[in-house]
Amino acid sequence: MTLLHEDRLFPPDATTRAIAKRLYASVKCLPIVSPHGHTQAAWFAHNQPFPDPARLFVQPDHYVYRMLYSQGVSMDDLEIGVPELKNPRKVWRLFAEHYYLFRGTPTRLWLDYAFQELFGLTERLSAKNADHHYDVVAEKLRTPEFLPRALYERFHLEVLATTDSPLDSLNDHRIIRDSGWHGRILPTFRPDPVVDPDFAGFRDNVAKLGALASEETATWSGYLRAIEKTRARFKQLGCTATDHGHPSARTADLSQEEAASLYFAILSGAASADQRELFRAQMLTEMARMSVADGLVMQIHPGSFRNHNQQVYERYGRDTGADIPTPTDYVYALRPLLNRFGNEANLTIILFTLDESSYSRELAPLAGHYPCLRLGPPWWFFDSPEGMLRFREATTETAGFYNTVGFNDDTRAFLSIPARHDVARRMDCAFLARLVAEHRLDEEEAFEVVRDLAYNLVRKAYKL
Amino acid sequence: MTLLHEDRLFPPDATTRAIAKRLYASVKCLPIVSPHGHTQAAWFAHNQPFPDPARLFVQPDHYVYRMLYSQGVSMDDLEIGVPELKNPRKVWRLFAEHYYLFRGTPTRLWLDYAFQELFGLTERLSAKNADHHYDVVAEKLRTPEFLPRALYERFHLEVLATTDSPLDSLNDHRIIRDSGWHGRILPTFRPDPVVDPDFAGFRDNVAKLGALASEETATWSGYLRAIEKTRARFKQLGCTATDHGHPSARTADLSQEEAASLYFAILSGAASADQRELFRAQMLTEMARMSVADGLVMQIHPGSFRNHNQQVYERYGRDTGADIPTPTDYVYALRPLLNRFGNEANLTIILFTLDESSYSRELAPLAGHYPCLRLGPPWWFFDSPEGMLRFREATTETAGFYNTVGFNDDTRAFLSIPARHDVARRMDCAFLARLVAEHRLDEEEAFEVVRDLAYNLVRKAYKL
Amino acid sequence: MTLLHEDRLFPPDATTRAIAKRLYASVKCLPIVSPHGHTQAAWFAHNQPFPDPARLFVQPDHYVYRMLYSQGVSMDDLEIGVPELKNPRKVWRLFAEHYYLFRGTPTRLWLDYAFQELFGLTERLSAKNADHHYDVVAEKLRTPEFLPRALYERFHLEVLATTDSPLDSLNDHRIIRDSGWHGRILPTFRPDPVVDPDFAGFRDNVAKLGALASEETATWSGYLRAIEKTRARFKQLGCTATDHGHPSARTADLSQEEAASLYFAILSGAASADQRELFRAQMLTEMARMSVADGLVMQIHPGSFRNHNQQVYERYGRDTGADIPTPTDYVYALRPLLNRFGNEANLTIILFTLDESSYSRELAPLAGHYPCLRLGPPWWFFDSPEGMLRFREATTETAGFYNTVGFNDDTRAFLSIPARHDVARRMDCAFLARLVAEHRLDEEEAFEVVRDLAYNLVRKAYKL
Repeated sequence: MTLLHEDRLFPPDATTRAIAKRLYASVKCLPIVSPHGHTQAAWFAHNQPFPDPARLFVQPDHYVYRMLYSQGVSMDDLEIGVPELKNPRKVWRLFAEHYYLFRGTPTRLWLDYAFQELFGLTERLSAKNADHHYDVVAEKLRTPEFLPRALYERFHLEVLATTDSPLDSLNDHRIIRDSGWHGRILPTFRPDPVVDPDFAGFRDNVAKLGALASEETATWSGYLRAIEKTRARFKQLGCTATDHGHPSARTADLSQEEAASLYFAILSGAASADQRELFRAQMLTEMARMSVADGLVMQIHPGSFRNHNQQVYERYGRDTGADIPTPTDYVYALRPLLNRFGNEANLTIILFTLDESSYSRELAPLAGHYPCLRLGPPWWFFDSPEGMLRFREATTETAGFYNTVGFNDDTRAFLSIPARHDVARRMDCAFLARLVAEHRLDEEEAFEVVRDLAYNLVRKAYKL
Repeated sequence: MTLLHEDRLFPPDATTRAIAKRLYASVKCLPIVSPHGHTQAAWFAHNQPFPDPARLFVQPDHYVYRMLYSQGVSMDDLEIGVPELKNPRKVWRLFAEHYYLFRGTPTRLWLDYAFQELFGLTERLSAKNADHHYDVVAEKLRTPEFLPRALYERFHLEVLATTDSPLDSLNDHRIIRDSGWHGRILPTFRPDPVVDPDFAGFRDNVAKLGALASEETATWSGYLRAIEKTRARFKQLGCTATDHGHPSARTADLSQEEAASLYFAILSGAASADQRELFRAQMLTEMARMSVADGLVMQIHPGSFRNHNQQVYERYGRDTGADIPTPTDYVYALRPLLNRFGNEANLTIILFTLDESSYSRELAPLAGHYPCLRLGPPWWFFDSPEGMLRFREATTETAGFYNTVGFNDDTRAFLSIPARHDVARRMDCAFLARLVAEHRLDEEEAFEVVRDLAYNLVRKAYKL
Repeated sequence: MTLLHEDRLFPPDATTRAIAKRLYASVKCLPIVSPHGHTQAAWFAHNQPFPDPARLFVQPDHYVYRMLYSQGVSMDDLEIGVPELKNPRKVWRLFAEHYYLFRGTPTRLWLDYAFQELFGLTERLSAKNADHHYDVVAEKLRTPEFLPRALYERFHLEVLATTDSPLDSLNDHRIIRDSGWHGRILPTFRPDPVVDPDFAGFRDNVAKLGALASEETATWSGYLRAIEKTRARFKQLGCTATDHGHPSARTADLSQEEAASLYFAILSGAASADQRELFRAQMLTEMARMSVADGLVMQIHPGSFRNHNQQVYERYGRDTGADIPTPTDYVYALRPLLNRFGNEANLTIILFTLDESSYSRELAPLAGHYPCLRLGPPWWFFDSPEGMLRFREATTETAGFYNTVGFNDDTRAFLSIPARHDVARRMDCAFLARLVAEHRLDEEEAFEVVRDLAYNLVRKAYKL
């Protein structure tokens, strides 16, 4: 019995599958480059064992518990938001009992991969074997082979980027550097807390930013300098990219006078919703300006309606599975920024979407023209086999392969990293195998492309 | 010669097809549960023969005559809207002559199924054999085997829901109950005539509602009580669900004072379009409140621009093939209702769409989080092989199988019911077979899932 | 070695491929009907050799250089917008060096076809063989076999429509007619320069229109008469269709008084953006009115945000690869026109889109009802294998095959015409082969349908 078939995700047609297998064999063992995700530098700085199975697989993974919640499992019973689990085994049993809900989902692919490849479990998780699985995982987690740095090696990671607030001291990153460990853990500059007026504690955050950077953020120019200095601080620790999680992709190109006056309105706390949106829009253009200067690659992740479920938000907080995608415009939204910096040779902006209707209509046409634009991989709900196929089918004919940037695992779940990259590599092989089988691409070209998709493009796009 | 191949709709690849066939064999003969449709209780109450072939297959089926009309066939020649057909055979010949237009459409699949499986006709309908087909169908319709109750048995129906106005006496449902016949025909509460101010005769409808329920509908509270009592009347005859056909999915959560004052404006007949839309929005939330109390499952069918063709509407009336889908928002629209009742354990809301771009962007993420939400099957134009595949491909990875509710035939054409359920079962088998062939699901799991999709989920979701 | 496999674009599954091959064999050699495109009548009027390879393949083809530009190749180095290339060989080398960027794109399919079928080149273009390819192409272009009229024969063209301004004298079309050459080159009436107030030089254009037609365009009625007479002038030279490239599909149905007063506001140059959009909307309805009278088929191509890149526009002008699609509404937009003329037997309107989400939601339902509406083939970015599959998958089940109109090559690149039609025929065979293999269509019906799609429907829809 086995959870994972060696040919999983490859097309059933024998000819196409054989091509996919040949392609996959050539990239299966390439190092993993992970330029965007939400793992914690602290894990690698301190190299402590991961806690129990429930805290590893259930509590931090909103993919997992949103599904359980949708089927009536209580978030209290799952101990979501509880810092110290009272009964991790009970949580695990609830999870195991509902594991069938994940049939047909990528979560199931990732979890089965971790269970089998990391923990040697080959029977599908269920109520029946819940305790056995719990015990096996718990025991392994206490071994040195499962310490964060050991897993980094085992996963064949070449570089791993975290996502960090401008208010973060980056001490954990510094500890890693100073430790002499050769693992490459890089910070990513995510300025939302200091550029989004709707972010909790925005004004305090701006004040802290100024204090950390020794700049007077009461003025627009001081505020911009504080950001520039913080970006420089991140760069010193290896940061190559910024990340922007705005509700929309809107950008603006105000005069500096208008921007300064808008900034004062924002700082006063009396700005309207329109003004707050305009400020975020202007800040994306300011970030592009800084990127032209310092070379940091921009990532824009728009279009999520955060905390849609008010009761869940009030009780359990942010990032609890209640973020819902919305229709997202890029054509009008990005134009102010692009008209200012769209033809700059030194600028790279990687665009993501939660609105798949924009792939063929907006994103591929934009990336197939503007030299600064690249398409990020299918994101979040679309980090999945069907999502990846739809992405390639909808974007390749207009933007080609070379305006894309390889894969992002974007995960909080460290143990899912190899599984996620494996799914991405397999799906690219499946897509390319179809092109080869339909004589739209020579097989020898496909070998080159699949290596680019798995390894070369991400390093180039993120300057790694 | 035969119209239907036994392997129809299964993927051509031999491995995948073999899996699909095994899965299909396990669900082919399961009883049909039909929780949503537009058949008439009167048929089963009075059990009279269906009329001639044209009135059975052409006149009531807007799928059929919209296609003929689109290709220049006159609706007068088809005698659309004529209560007693003058020349049913002439109508039938027109239909037969244009039958090639249905190539590649689900209508063709349904009709061929009825022709072959019910009437034993195995040659494709055409101008050449029009009269022969007409005669065969007409003759069979006069036999006892083709009376409504006999067909109910033959179709292996377990339960069949109709869709009914709150002003309906439900006498036909009562006659069925009192007849001792064991067929299970249930009403569905569709309050559009009394909650949509744009519905023809709205104010009269509200007055009638009050009279029927012995409540004073001149007041907001009396109006709500009249609705509650009508729901109770429906429940007594086995009703388990409500259905709401609004232009949008907008909901609102006004205070009772605001709602009462809006209701007066509506009753005055002087309300603006915005107010009328707000009233519909508020009424969805009121319906959710009542559902929490009485347990009726809500169905929301938004997004159709009704009667788009003004000339056709004026001449031939409603439901004549000129309803056109529009872009439909769910994320913002449903939030007021969801913030009020979205976490209620006793509430089920089944969402439908005519805007497929919302499947992966809005509907699957919403249903994959909120415990009250389920996804209805692909609806109307998407009740088709490709539509069903796109639905599963776009929703399963985020919402799984268990946030969906099986199949609705949603038909006015009683004879198409077994064909429609057969297509749905085959397409689910085709989809699952691909998952199995690509090693994304074990075959033994697929057997469980396909039975859930064909039989168990619909009974659970609709409380049948 | 060969660039083109004889089975290219056919599904890999052996059964399905065999069906596709049989279908393709039946349409491969049918004449090409090209009812919409951007070739130049002057080529056929004067029958001069095409210039060098760079001016033939790179400079006029925004599909080609937008991709190069997106990857950092300078438009100056490509000599875009330069009337006489200084260094065509250098441009060609840049192109060859970046040819790998087109992997997976339709451009690559079209170019490889031209290289192999027209120039006998069977090695993939690259930096290595750039000069050789250049020399071979340049040499052939100087031979009589490569003169425009000879290529017209060789391509097996039956009719070829150009796209022409109402201000064009159509002298080249007249020269062709008078030359006795039997090739059928027809003009298409594209009135954008005189009906779109935002078109460069609009007011001068209107004045010229009046002068050419000997009508007083200072009045609304004179303006309309000038257009009617110009349409008649086009008809005399064989024109059967008009074409409308508006930013949106919006239509209006003003009273003639309102329209006249709007026209004055427009002519005054002081009209607002809303008024200009309303004027375009009204003019679509006027064009429909004229089409009911004179029988010209309307084509509507909405939804492109033209000249999105301001810097590129200012430096290199229009049509330089920076047009980006936008979300496009049809349901509300077309209603005024449809309510006026939607049921006219003598009207044909062919709808195109750059917003694929409208295929199943709006376009197929509209075309599956209104007798005047037909669906144009997948356009621009969607003139591609995946684009064609998505089009058929999303529209056939609702609109059938017979509300579509065959293929448009829509090209400025004369040499790509046979390649483009070949891709379209292959993809229709691939789609139909799947229907046959899945027993949704009989093979003998598929032979009829594929011939209709390749040849009959286009002639009927465009009245050719």
